[in-house]
Amino acid sequence: MSNKIRLGIVGYGNLGKGAEKAIRQTPDMELVAVFTRRDPASLVLDQTGVKALHISAASDYQNEIDVMLLCGGSATDLPEQTPHFASMFHTVDSYDTHAKIPEFYQSVNEAATKHDKTAIISVGWDPGLFSINRVMADAILPNGENYTFWGKGLSQGHSDAVRRVDGVKNGVQYTIPSEPAIEKVRDGNNPELATSEKHRRVCYVVAEEQADPAAIEKEIKTMPHYFADYETEVHFITEEELKQNHSKAPHGGFVIRGGNTGEGNKQIYEFSLQLDSNPEFTASVVVAYARAAYRLSQEKQFGAKTVYDVTLGHLSPRSGEELRRDFL
Amino acid sequence: MSNKIRLGIVGYGNLGKGAEKAIRQTPDMELVAVFTRRDPASLVLDQTGVKALHISAASDYQNEIDVMLLCGGSATDLPEQTPHFASMFHTVDSYDTHAKIPEFYQSVNEAATKHDKTAIISVGWDPGLFSINRVMADAILPNGENYTFWGKGLSQGHSDAVRRVDGVKNGVQYTIPSEPAIEKVRDGNNPELATSEKHRRVCYVVAEEQADPAAIEKEIKTMPHYFADYETEVHFITEEELKQNHSKAPHGGFVIRGGNTGEGNKQIYEFSLQLDSNPEFTASVVVAYARAAYRLSQEKQFGAKTVYDVTLGHLSPRSGEELRRDFL
Repeated sequence: MSNKIRLGIVGYGNLGKGAEKAIRQTPDMELVAVFTRRDPASLVLDQTGVKALHISAASDYQNEIDVMLLCGGSATDLPEQTPHFASMFHTVDSYDTHAKIPEFYQSVNEAATKHDKTAIISVGWDPGLFSINRVMADAILPNGENYTFWGKGLSQGHSDAVRRVDGVKNGVQYTIPSEPAIEKVRDGNNPELATSEKHRRVCYVVAEEQADPAAIEKEIKTMPHYFADYETEVHFITEEELKQNHSKAPHGGFVIRGGNTGEGNKQIYEFSLQLDSNPEFTASVVVAYARAAYRLSQEKQFGAKTVYDVTLGHLSPRSGEELRRDFL
Repeated sequence: MSNKIRLGIVGYGNLGKGAEKAIRQTPDMELVAVFTRRDPASLVLDQTGVKALHISAASDYQNEIDVMLLCGGSATDLPEQTPHFASMFHTVDSYDTHAKIPEFYQSVNEAATKHDKTAIISVGWDPGLFSINRVMADAILPNGENYTFWGKGLSQGHSDAVRRVDGVKNGVQYTIPSEPAIEKVRDGNNPELATSEKHRRVCYVVAEEQADPAAIEKEIKTMPHYFADYETEVHFITEEELKQNHSKAPHGGFVIRGGNTGEGNKQIYEFSLQLDSNPEFTASVVVAYARAAYRLSQEKQFGAKTVYDVTLGHLSPRSGEELRRDFL
């Protein structure tokens, strides 16, 4: 019998694939099976010894899998899947619809509590590591202001909007944090900043052969909600350039708090990520929290949990003794 | 009866004074008394209603104080004081002699466990917030390397060394992280860097009237351990300039981890602080962890604890519901 924590993955998109890769980097965990809604035979897994199974077979694996990683999307998959799987497994998900987290928490908490399962929700970098830093900074510097900047990063929603414009064959959109805005925040002046002042938008567009670039540029730049309020750049490139230079999914961002202590001493707290691969990093966070979910379950801490309920002692593969000696 | 967490402070140096100021910014905590080895009548406290008492009177206040903040030094005060006070109060300290933390932990743990007290040790920013980020980054990106840079900051030990040089009337030393070294780390190349390559040292010196600046500069730059291995600058200034421009205690630094996921995707994790006042910030962290110590004690989690044993739910003044709704 293995002493490793035994994991399953539900959903084999970018996040599920990232989770498979991340598990291979963690010696204390192992992947048992990947569950999919597609034909399992169509899945090409990275690893031998891992089963590809239809999602309907998951319930048969309650004795073989300790923690299930739910790698579906937040729009429609997770609101259904997390409560469902949290009645059979300890789970981790990356639910990221910020506005709906309270109701999501409640429905997962009901299912998990009822079945003595531990379900850590909304894990990743935002929500996730960024959330941790917003709360840490707020607890330490009560007299201050939090700022979150996103980017430089590929935005899926804005790329989709660009691709819907008439005459656009293909395209991507990067959200880029505004350097002057970041500098103001780092100076500790706690400025008032609209979201549109905090970010600018850069589009790389492949136009159809007959299309009018000026018309495309105008339609993008004046698109309400998505671009109209932002400083926006549009660059026209070839399909080859798009493929060569814009096929990764980089992302990242900053959480900065400017606080004051004593008689106006400025204290600047900053956390940032610069990621070559957004899904692989998110998956790495999810996998680390699977360890925490397992340990919380061993302590009978059941129900829905968030990153606010997890200690670093639960998260790290290292012993308390090693952490105190080598990391404190 | 107040619902606030009732705090005491032991030691009224820079850290104790910073703690007094930080408590005034936290509505859910209140300061009851400051204990000192000096004549209590000599203490000029910021706040009315707070008692200044001799340290020997502390044992009489076990019913009036929930958590005692131990604001003494790590060299000789805390190794004695923390075990002593942890047998009477829940405590927080900022013990920062990294190499001796395991034995310190053990002696505090014995005292606290025996008397059902919660004692959170080694709280501040390093050890403290930096320790948290070293472990978090290590747990999420197992395939990578941690780097810690200190500064720009006033170093007490190095300033003392400068002031001991013949012909030096007064002076300060700043430790400054090397920008080229930081850039290498941010590029994700996980370079091998000696401590001397990671930092440079800048001294501001007030010379005695008769002294030879060239001789002073040479003696500083060739001083073993302190300066010889480092890129060092020496600037001569007047006593007035020293007072005007170098009387604060700024500090800060960076924890950066460059990690790899999947097929060589670089993921850069970075945490940084830029502090106008090192002691006031450290004190703000200590005060926040007093809330956690109190809550852990309510859950009967007794013994010595570190930042690795505390959740953000324990640390934040906000409810779980508020955190999930507004911060996640």
